[in-house]
Amino acid sequence: MIKVGIIGSTGYAGNEIVRLLTGHPEAEIAWLSSKSFAGEKYQGIYRNYYKLLDMPCTAEGIAELADTVDVIFTATPQGYLSGILNEELLEKCRFIDLSADYRIKDVKTYEKWYKIGHQSPELIAEAVYGLTEVNREDIKHARILANPGCYTTCSILTALPLVKAGIIDPDTLIVNALSGVSGAGRGAKIANLFCEVNESAKAYGVATHRHTPEIEEQLGYAAGRTVTISFTPHLVPMNRGILATETASLKGSHTMEEIRSVYEEFYGKEYFIRILPEGQCPETRFTEGSNFVDIGFQIDERTNRIVMMGALDNLVKGAAGQAVQNMNVMFGFEETDGLRIIPMVP
Amino acid sequence: MIKVGIIGSTGYAGNEIVRLLTGHPEAEIAWLSSKSFAGEKYQGIYRNYYKLLDMPCTAEGIAELADTVDVIFTATPQGYLSGILNEELLEKCRFIDLSADYRIKDVKTYEKWYKIGHQSPELIAEAVYGLTEVNREDIKHARILANPGCYTTCSILTALPLVKAGIIDPDTLIVNALSGVSGAGRGAKIANLFCEVNESAKAYGVATHRHTPEIEEQLGYAAGRTVTISFTPHLVPMNRGILATETASLKGSHTMEEIRSVYEEFYGKEYFIRILPEGQCPETRFTEGSNFVDIGFQIDERTNRIVMMGALDNLVKGAAGQAVQNMNVMFGFEETDGLRIIPMVP
Amino acid sequence: MIKVGIIGSTGYAGNEIVRLLTGHPEAEIAWLSSKSFAGEKYQGIYRNYYKLLDMPCTAEGIAELADTVDVIFTATPQGYLSGILNEELLEKCRFIDLSADYRIKDVKTYEKWYKIGHQSPELIAEAVYGLTEVNREDIKHARILANPGCYTTCSILTALPLVKAGIIDPDTLIVNALSGVSGAGRGAKIANLFCEVNESAKAYGVATHRHTPEIEEQLGYAAGRTVTISFTPHLVPMNRGILATETASLKGSHTMEEIRSVYEEFYGKEYFIRILPEGQCPETRFTEGSNFVDIGFQIDERTNRIVMMGALDNLVKGAAGQAVQNMNVMFGFEETDGLRIIPMVP
Amino acid sequence: MIKVGIIGSTGYAGNEIVRLLTGHPEAEIAWLSSKSFAGEKYQGIYRNYYKLLDMPCTAEGIAELADTVDVIFTATPQGYLSGILNEELLEKCRFIDLSADYRIKDVKTYEKWYKIGHQSPELIAEAVYGLTEVNREDIKHARILANPGCYTTCSILTALPLVKAGIIDPDTLIVNALSGVSGAGRGAKIANLFCEVNESAKAYGVATHRHTPEIEEQLGYAAGRTVTISFTPHLVPMNRGILATETASLKGSHTMEEIRSVYEEFYGKEYFIRILPEGQCPETRFTEGSNFVDIGFQIDERTNRIVMMGALDNLVKGAAGQAVQNMNVMFGFEETDGLRIIPMVP
Repeated sequence: MIKVGIIGSTGYAGNEIVRLLTGHPEAEIAWLSSKSFAGEKYQGIYRNYYKLLDMPCTAEGIAELADTVDVIFTATPQGYLSGILNEELLEKCRFIDLSADYRIKDVKTYEKWYKIGHQSPELIAEAVYGLTEVNREDIKHARILANPGCYTTCSILTALPLVKAGIIDPDTLIVNALSGVSGAGRGAKIANLFCEVNESAKAYGVATHRHTPEIEEQLGYAAGRTVTISFTPHLVPMNRGILATETASLKGSHTMEEIRSVYEEFYGKEYFIRILPEGQCPETRFTEGSNFVDIGFQIDERTNRIVMMGALDNLVKGAAGQAVQNMNVMFGFEETDGLRIIPMVP
Repeated sequence: MIKVGIIGSTGYAGNEIVRLLTGHPEAEIAWLSSKSFAGEKYQGIYRNYYKLLDMPCTAEGIAELADTVDVIFTATPQGYLSGILNEELLEKCRFIDLSADYRIKDVKTYEKWYKIGHQSPELIAEAVYGLTEVNREDIKHARILANPGCYTTCSILTALPLVKAGIIDPDTLIVNALSGVSGAGRGAKIANLFCEVNESAKAYGVATHRHTPEIEEQLGYAAGRTVTISFTPHLVPMNRGILATETASLKGSHTMEEIRSVYEEFYGKEYFIRILPEGQCPETRFTEGSNFVDIGFQIDERTNRIVMMGALDNLVKGAAGQAVQNMNVMFGFEETDGLRIIPMVP
Repeated sequence: MIKVGIIGSTGYAGNEIVRLLTGHPEAEIAWLSSKSFAGEKYQGIYRNYYKLLDMPCTAEGIAELADTVDVIFTATPQGYLSGILNEELLEKCRFIDLSADYRIKDVKTYEKWYKIGHQSPELIAEAVYGLTEVNREDIKHARILANPGCYTTCSILTALPLVKAGIIDPDTLIVNALSGVSGAGRGAKIANLFCEVNESAKAYGVATHRHTPEIEEQLGYAAGRTVTISFTPHLVPMNRGILATETASLKGSHTMEEIRSVYEEFYGKEYFIRILPEGQCPETRFTEGSNFVDIGFQIDERTNRIVMMGALDNLVKGAAGQAVQNMNVMFGFEETDGLRIIPMVP
Repeated sequence: MIKVGIIGSTGYAGNEIVRLLTGHPEAEIAWLSSKSFAGEKYQGIYRNYYKLLDMPCTAEGIAELADTVDVIFTATPQGYLSGILNEELLEKCRFIDLSADYRIKDVKTYEKWYKIGHQSPELIAEAVYGLTEVNREDIKHARILANPGCYTTCSILTALPLVKAGIIDPDTLIVNALSGVSGAGRGAKIANLFCEVNESAKAYGVATHRHTPEIEEQLGYAAGRTVTISFTPHLVPMNRGILATETASLKGSHTMEEIRSVYEEFYGKEYFIRILPEGQCPETRFTEGSNFVDIGFQIDERTNRIVMMGALDNLVKGAAGQAVQNMNVMFGFEETDGLRIIPMVP
């Protein structure tokens, strides 16, 4: 039984880590940290935990907190972990960071897209990008685990096998993604009020969204060269879910069966990735509450393009679930521990 | 490990039984029956089970099906189970009926409110009403378990302790309840289309809703006399949830502390019933996906009335969850087996 | 053509006044005032007005603003108008106040429920309560029009004819009302974020909601005596709409036809009030965007109670629409000017 | 004052024509036809019209009906109008068809994508495609007006100026579009139930959606050559709205200002098309209930692609509103008659 601490525990991603760990057979929560709600009972903020989790939010310093646990999850704004992390802390415990601080290897790219300076660039190199299905071996020994973003997890996993197999031209890749509103966080902003979001759809961050370089970097490793893509995120009125619709030109001619076999070879043994039967398009609801990624695809013979589609729950596989999956790998637990959850429909 | 069959497995309640049993340590699904989808794979209808449950829907006769299992759940329309149940079947296995067929002891009351004849009235007497927290002892030995309705579970559990303690006058009880749309079932009706339900609220079945006599019968047992109440159900645009707001006149003068102690005495040891701290009103979201009932209350000194409020997930404690809870009691398992689920927020 | 100013124009009610006045044949907007968005273009805040309304938000003082218009709408927090209104301003223009400042005649009742002191109690007496269908004659000459609240408009109009006719006992009246989220305003609060409200229902303000004394006062006038009721408001996940479900004991025995004739006599000539055919329950969607109130009712013979139901759009008949209707009466326009809007479905 | 008949009046598009015509100064509804609801009062089906429209649904034959009106709107399934239309009918009145029967000039293309035979191919040539802003002159004299689809109106209007100006390469055009659920119609299908659609997003009809050839044909006229595009529609949980996000490669290098001037030149005088200020992305809510199309765009310098975005209300500019706009042009009315509606927010 390992001990776990969560910094930023009262945001939606932090809360989802709490939900998943509460049912985990090998990990227990030692403390929950929150700047905004320090001193308040966690079950008073998220009343779903009433009578189930009797723990206050702490605001103690990280140096003391780190002494008491084996791993810390940071579900914090960009710049938080990179501003405090150092060798001393890393000797105390391991870190799973849900922010973008250690996801991008090139610090200049990070600073350009995030518009903040990086305070511990010397640690970026050793951080492991936590796309579990892709980097499982490296994750085992990671001290700093850079947990991928929600859009990126969905976008990368959906396209990566075909990029790696050289079946699509990555520079023709157009990713349009839809996100539920929990992806916007729990901050008190007018833009995220019910009446501003409900009954509407919009694109945002066009040509400037910060998940773009993260997708490009990972697909670049698969392609063996620099990749430049178009990424357009959208907000749609639902609590949870990411749907990525990705269109790319096929290199040469391919059948549906060939494409399927590439996916199956890549993901065939993966518990959390489900390649849907032909003709089925993924729907976010069929992944809700779970760590699954559902992937479908369709060749468009008229244009010799392929449309790849991926769906996941942004708070689970897109954040907390993948973080727990990575924790499982890091500590040698069953990878599915705490994550064998049936998606809830409706 | 017991074997379980589900008739009517492709409705929302049936599907929720499947979800809960898939994670149950002591029960396994032997077959899934469906009239509408016979022969189809269950995971093709509810794609959340893709790669998780490889089982077709059967339409075999109940006589043969009953031979293979220890218990059958019937999530079927009114009149189905009462039309086929007999001693021969009851010797083969036990039945947990999610319809209203055996809930009401007085067959005339049943026939009047449901407007159908009852085909096996001789079996009503032995059926046990499955409000687990109230009838636990009788449930242990039930052959026919009449699983309560969603509105009724919420309405009864919220008011019962105060009725039993003689603190409220049950004949002054006005129950207004809100339901999510899954309570209307999965039938293809215009009235339940997204665009007919979304962005609207309405009352329906005013003075005629079939759950009324069920509430009255159970509260009547608690009061020790016949009880007549007002019950008005409403449909609101959400997938899941029942919220019952119940107003009644207090007999004499009572403090909030007194009321609390009555509730605590009645439910203090119950895992699935949570009496909220003073000043908190239950919200359906804090029970979503779980078997919990959250209860709050407020005395209105100006009118010497009390407002009691109960919230639950209509598909879990209001249907499938309570059915599994009853199964646990009937077979001597831990009552919370398969049901220790943290409500999912958001 | 009269000139109109709106203070608090960037809240949801203020914005709805703008929408309605933009299509009004006899009134034109002279200025829009906003504390939070002073200097910004209105069409930059509410982009639905892009290319349709080219006007900045002003933050000028009310003394100067009042010189330029015939009437000012104040869609402002409680205490704003009562804090500045005086005889000098009243000589400049007339005021239609969407706050509660002048709704309640007894200043002590106001101060008790609103927990603020009233700064101009000497003006309360002359203010006219703007329930148009009830106070039309007095409204014509009002200098201060106290526009009713959303819950109150719905609750009062639904019950008033039966209270006035002595058919129900007002002290048995239990009002349960459901509101869309726009009723909570456009302030940046966590509680009103999409993910906090969506897929959930709750009661709030139990036994303490400020609209209670307003309902009681108006029904008291109809009853000819003091009336005490129970009022429980609820929040449900939709943008717009109020649904009031009101249960009361009948005095003596009455038929559906008798009740209908009472309603028809009271409201038969009213354009904005629709008494639904027998058996129909009002649905908020059928009033959306319009100034209509839909009223239905059902006698429950078992309890000799009646369930009255009213539905309206909280931003229109519950706020801005009734305010414009009152303006029409005050200035001698057609009462339906700017308000002959077909409800929009879906 | 012209007389109008509507066939298929009880679907969502038919109902929206009724809503718009009810407020039209130059047209009045002579009859409403409905196969499913013949004999029923229209206000019993759409209760928003209660007390506003006292008219039954007729099922009379079209020959008789056509005698009594100047124009018939057909909001009917594919194949209906083409199956009955002939010269005799066309001498009686004009037709505005909301189905796809006369949209596509090449009958083989129609039959291939719609998988039905065309029964009156000889009439296709004279039919005018009713994209009002593009074909205004031809529309004036049309006897058969082929009213465009919802996805197509949005997709074409958003991209057409840049295609016509040769600024983008149309064969690189990737259209991803999101639709509200009313686009799926009012048929009683499980797939469109609230609980199947709410809280989820999905793509559908990938590489096979019937609006594809319609977009290609119209953009082909603008390009002066055959155009092949990728079109992927999505369903998102809201009542109304289409959002089209269209990505294409720029030919050569262009500035935001150059692009804007192309749009402004093309649409500058159009009332219903709003080119948004730089940096603003269209949101469907800002067009709700109105006939507006909001268009935004962003150059992505990294890829030398442009992202064009269009938003509209699928039932208004995407169906009934454009149909009324076309009627206005056909009969020489003000083009905005009955359509000067402020979008309703929230």
